[in-house]
Amino acid sequence: MAGTAQRRVAVVGATGVAGQQFLVSLGQHPWFKVKRLAASERSAGKKFGEAIRDQSSGATRWFCDEPCPKEFLNLEVENAEKLVLDDIDLVFTAVESDAAKIVEPLYAAKVPVISTASAFRYDADVPVFLPGVNIDHSALVKVQQKKRGWKGFVSPGPNCTTVGLVFSLKPLYDRFGISSVIMTSMQAVSGAGRSPGVLSYDILDNIVPYIPKEEEKVQTETQKILGKLDHDRIVPAPFNVSCTCTRVNVIDGHTEAVFVGLQKKASLDEIKQAWRDGYKDFLKLELPSAPPELVHYTDEPFRPQPRLDRNLHDGMATVIGRLRNDNVLPNGVKYVLLSHNTKMGAAKGAVLTAEYLVKRGVIA
Amino acid sequence: MAGTAQRRVAVVGATGVAGQQFLVSLGQHPWFKVKRLAASERSAGKKFGEAIRDQSSGATRWFCDEPCPKEFLNLEVENAEKLVLDDIDLVFTAVESDAAKIVEPLYAAKVPVISTASAFRYDADVPVFLPGVNIDHSALVKVQQKKRGWKGFVSPGPNCTTVGLVFSLKPLYDRFGISSVIMTSMQAVSGAGRSPGVLSYDILDNIVPYIPKEEEKVQTETQKILGKLDHDRIVPAPFNVSCTCTRVNVIDGHTEAVFVGLQKKASLDEIKQAWRDGYKDFLKLELPSAPPELVHYTDEPFRPQPRLDRNLHDGMATVIGRLRNDNVLPNGVKYVLLSHNTKMGAAKGAVLTAEYLVKRGVIA
Amino acid sequence: MAGTAQRRVAVVGATGVAGQQFLVSLGQHPWFKVKRLAASERSAGKKFGEAIRDQSSGATRWFCDEPCPKEFLNLEVENAEKLVLDDIDLVFTAVESDAAKIVEPLYAAKVPVISTASAFRYDADVPVFLPGVNIDHSALVKVQQKKRGWKGFVSPGPNCTTVGLVFSLKPLYDRFGISSVIMTSMQAVSGAGRSPGVLSYDILDNIVPYIPKEEEKVQTETQKILGKLDHDRIVPAPFNVSCTCTRVNVIDGHTEAVFVGLQKKASLDEIKQAWRDGYKDFLKLELPSAPPELVHYTDEPFRPQPRLDRNLHDGMATVIGRLRNDNVLPNGVKYVLLSHNTKMGAAKGAVLTAEYLVKRGVIA
Amino acid sequence: MAGTAQRRVAVVGATGVAGQQFLVSLGQHPWFKVKRLAASERSAGKKFGEAIRDQSSGATRWFCDEPCPKEFLNLEVENAEKLVLDDIDLVFTAVESDAAKIVEPLYAAKVPVISTASAFRYDADVPVFLPGVNIDHSALVKVQQKKRGWKGFVSPGPNCTTVGLVFSLKPLYDRFGISSVIMTSMQAVSGAGRSPGVLSYDILDNIVPYIPKEEEKVQTETQKILGKLDHDRIVPAPFNVSCTCTRVNVIDGHTEAVFVGLQKKASLDEIKQAWRDGYKDFLKLELPSAPPELVHYTDEPFRPQPRLDRNLHDGMATVIGRLRNDNVLPNGVKYVLLSHNTKMGAAKGAVLTAEYLVKRGVIA
Repeated sequence: MAGTAQRRVAVVGATGVAGQQFLVSLGQHPWFKVKRLAASERSAGKKFGEAIRDQSSGATRWFCDEPCPKEFLNLEVENAEKLVLDDIDLVFTAVESDAAKIVEPLYAAKVPVISTASAFRYDADVPVFLPGVNIDHSALVKVQQKKRGWKGFVSPGPNCTTVGLVFSLKPLYDRFGISSVIMTSMQAVSGAGRSPGVLSYDILDNIVPYIPKEEEKVQTETQKILGKLDHDRIVPAPFNVSCTCTRVNVIDGHTEAVFVGLQKKASLDEIKQAWRDGYKDFLKLELPSAPPELVHYTDEPFRPQPRLDRNLHDGMATVIGRLRNDNVLPNGVKYVLLSHNTKMGAAKGAVLTAEYLVKRGVIA
Repeated sequence: MAGTAQRRVAVVGATGVAGQQFLVSLGQHPWFKVKRLAASERSAGKKFGEAIRDQSSGATRWFCDEPCPKEFLNLEVENAEKLVLDDIDLVFTAVESDAAKIVEPLYAAKVPVISTASAFRYDADVPVFLPGVNIDHSALVKVQQKKRGWKGFVSPGPNCTTVGLVFSLKPLYDRFGISSVIMTSMQAVSGAGRSPGVLSYDILDNIVPYIPKEEEKVQTETQKILGKLDHDRIVPAPFNVSCTCTRVNVIDGHTEAVFVGLQKKASLDEIKQAWRDGYKDFLKLELPSAPPELVHYTDEPFRPQPRLDRNLHDGMATVIGRLRNDNVLPNGVKYVLLSHNTKMGAAKGAVLTAEYLVKRGVIA
Repeated sequence: MAGTAQRRVAVVGATGVAGQQFLVSLGQHPWFKVKRLAASERSAGKKFGEAIRDQSSGATRWFCDEPCPKEFLNLEVENAEKLVLDDIDLVFTAVESDAAKIVEPLYAAKVPVISTASAFRYDADVPVFLPGVNIDHSALVKVQQKKRGWKGFVSPGPNCTTVGLVFSLKPLYDRFGISSVIMTSMQAVSGAGRSPGVLSYDILDNIVPYIPKEEEKVQTETQKILGKLDHDRIVPAPFNVSCTCTRVNVIDGHTEAVFVGLQKKASLDEIKQAWRDGYKDFLKLELPSAPPELVHYTDEPFRPQPRLDRNLHDGMATVIGRLRNDNVLPNGVKYVLLSHNTKMGAAKGAVLTAEYLVKRGVIA
Repeated sequence: MAGTAQRRVAVVGATGVAGQQFLVSLGQHPWFKVKRLAASERSAGKKFGEAIRDQSSGATRWFCDEPCPKEFLNLEVENAEKLVLDDIDLVFTAVESDAAKIVEPLYAAKVPVISTASAFRYDADVPVFLPGVNIDHSALVKVQQKKRGWKGFVSPGPNCTTVGLVFSLKPLYDRFGISSVIMTSMQAVSGAGRSPGVLSYDILDNIVPYIPKEEEKVQTETQKILGKLDHDRIVPAPFNVSCTCTRVNVIDGHTEAVFVGLQKKASLDEIKQAWRDGYKDFLKLELPSAPPELVHYTDEPFRPQPRLDRNLHDGMATVIGRLRNDNVLPNGVKYVLLSHNTKMGAAKGAVLTAEYLVKRGVIA
């Protein structure tokens, strides 16, 4: 970690759901000090507390369970497209993909940009970091800077459905090798955002068995994040991933039924041990937003359940249960995992990534 | 079909959910005439309309969307353990497994018993029929009668989660061969019955990722139903089935995400064609409870959805969608299916099975 | 009824939820023949089947449980603002209030307009008809025509929450008089439409205790519909109505807990009798969309329930239960009612109103 | 408060939902030390951690969001009917009403019993305390002791639906007088307990508009709690209460739409001020489980909402919103309140009551 002074950060897209989650994650943060908020032109010039108040009804449009840290209510919201970064060390962005394509390059020209948007996620020179998983991909940062002529860089997080899957796979991949992955997700409605979001009319007493582009994202990202850096590019991890992604009537927490073929036979106990051991080095870093475990295995037969388990370690742990042998895939095992899509799977996970990059010197 | 006279039938477990569904399915039935109703001793001696009335609150405990056929309200409910079958040709039973073990042999000693209970489902001499799928297993009936010294026989239906899976697999198995099946189910709460049933407190905003014994049932039954008869026994179909069964907050309709490895490469169009062709002979029988299709494939990208599709053909069709290639299993394909667990998956499916066995002469 | 020929009708707003419900209600209608469909400019020029297909996903945006009547799929959708009515006798409109203000006068200048929009609902010269309730208000039609110089007229239906309340009150008002009404509603999400609609994220495991403007609408409309015509205006019914309107996580069917003070003491049996007798004359008209009862009282203690009772008589009956004495209001009684907000409370109710107006000669 | 030593307490019905909530509320409690746990004979002799483990599935039957305080896992569960109280100062009971009738007199003969059961709630010599509301009823304790020959006494809490209503009414009653109350409740499923509880099948996409005996309880208890002590009896508060109680698909938190007629006209601001002032003296006691406010009024137009507001002050506050004038009741006002039925409305509220009685010397 380069220095001990607090980094001065800007949060872009601050009035939206993910932006507000950034604010909750950054309130009283020991390393990051929010200096600037930005959003679309419509909110520009208003105090944040005013910008999230609906004019016609008088309702406050604050979407987090946690209250808004008081210090942000009087910050002025700036126009994201005109944001000046002279006094900013780091930007967190939480905007739609189309907007990200426009504003993230403006920021990345000057400072690191930690993003929840997918705009640059699939570019060859853009690393997709997960804490404790692929810090070795940080060499790509220089590739990106050189290619694009930026002083900063853009670092998008993975899709929320990828997050828990990769956290569960990484220790198995390292210890036993993986030959194939089949996964069916049952995803929470909060993952769809608020605009358009999922209508109650469409999901009550129902399942929607298709989420556009989601399966491709999970498949591609899993192989990329677990891929090996080869000079200036990432070679995707050499196993196939096949998914069916569905939406269910759950507020928060993505559940995934995973079937994994391993390169090397492993007992169920060895697998549980791999999960216990998997992130020891990372946890020793004791980052401010890091949970005490990144994966938590439970032997309770009816768990994990989204309502009961999503808030374990404040939504920063992937909770795994129901580990069993599978008789279809080679050396197959199967399990169920739960990952909080709007905590580790979104802004708070991005803050942890930023901490990780600071600690490891990727962010100066 | 042996004769044209109506068979006289008894419905056992008539006051419960599945029993009531039998009554709805048998009201005005052209081939079956309900002569006797039976239930536990507690209800014995009461008229049916009285037996389903809660004494303390005065509420009617009728659980079907359809009203109770009027002709049954004044039938007297008899004690299931003392049911006399002298004027009965066929018994439908809808009782818990423990009770089935006691009463079904009493009935099967005299007449055919079509059951929704699992009590005898895994016995080697007991066929598990699905309409249009495995009438060739009927040779087991004689094996059963000889071994047990019965004049009748017991014919239990499959678990409700097995039903849609097998209907979807059968045409693929016949035409392309199957090497492996991976399936994750998202099952409706009605599948758990009413006692104890699924508490709202446990499933609201939640998923329960474990249903005791369900996965083993689906795996065993699928191989049995698609198995080949070899003299006096069934050789299970020679492919592995691996499942994760979960409960979701849906009233009716089991959704299943299926991944299938085929013996022979098939295009998606060939698979759709196999589904279209698969049950032609069966449909030509024009049985009273048969739907116009046993499987219905839809190209609508967001379907099947339980609330929108479970009632297609009055819940007697397996609705399939989202057929895609899978890159993990050999010649892999994947799809999502929906099957109505309390219609084709329970009593009404059992009535269709009875019709099938009558038509094909297995029931005299 | 003026003549026996079918009226030629146009449906405006045909691609939206309420418009589609009009189409379902008008398919094979004996008196009304749909000749033209209209919607916003965006859909104009497309065949209806094409207009409801989402371009990016390929999904069909059809929102009714019933399938779309085949005859409409190939009708061309016209631009609502340029609709020519030369061959049209009657228009059904199902558009937002802002659009209704623009297009309904264009149509009403020539032909009668039956509307689900609130745009003109509170104008003094506009009657708000409910079938069987206030045909005497039809004298307002001529007032409206004279004042506005129209050959047709506009006839908006009441808010969906008003409908069941008024159907339950009318027989009591006629027989016993009413001094006051207190009502708390628990309204279904379908009442909010699809745009913006109610997000699952906002209503799952939740209640939203405020629906903007709803309480005022119910209060005003109830007094207007039950008001007396005095020459060229309606004198509101002389009792106060006080409401709290809430949104609950139910798909269809508004539940209302009603407390009524009566002018004259009435026994519970007399009240039930009033409901049984209340609409006899109307029911004798045997209109094509009329249910066998407009109100249905049930003594089942746990009813009415939205999921179990909303579809009684295809959603065209107000189901009432739990009639008890109330000890707060003078001669007080209380009860719970259920009314299907998107059937009788919307398009199908509007079609019944149109039939009523035709039968009674208000529509020529 | 008589002494500073910790009271030694027993928790009876410890394995059930309400009993577990007592344990959560009593973990690390500064005044109360749990020495004994009791339950039915079935659990007797087992360690608590073992008693809540389901034998067949291995699942832990722990029902609270908070984890079980570790110190209780190894306490032995005793048979409630044989519980010895020699070393116990106070008993908390959380058993069904039938069991309470048997065991509570056994305990009350020796020590004070704070109960969530309704068994003795309506007896003339039994006070029903709410913190900050009716400590003057404590004179009844001696009446009860004398009449029944007990050294202790039984103090049952009110029904969970009564709790929020009375907290909201008390400040209005004191300052303006009340002439009448009309209330419609929308109650959470957790209020029905787990056995039998509310089946998902019955409440999903539904409302159940009847909860047996609930309306009578709320009406009677409200008048009793707000009644005046006259020598050895309570004269019920002289206003009528009329309710409709319904069950909705919400996990925790009872919502109530309240209409109140006042003896004296009050502006909305005066009413808000009454709520702000109402419990000042009680809050000054700074009891360990007391929230910073007993009632919290919010001007947010769409609040209170159960999911967003039930956990305010850890479920110990009644959250009120939507205060408006009502034009039906004399000097009428109406509002919506939310009260956490399993926190303040159950065990944790009972612990606060016990603290209150200790502080005020009713418990020695």
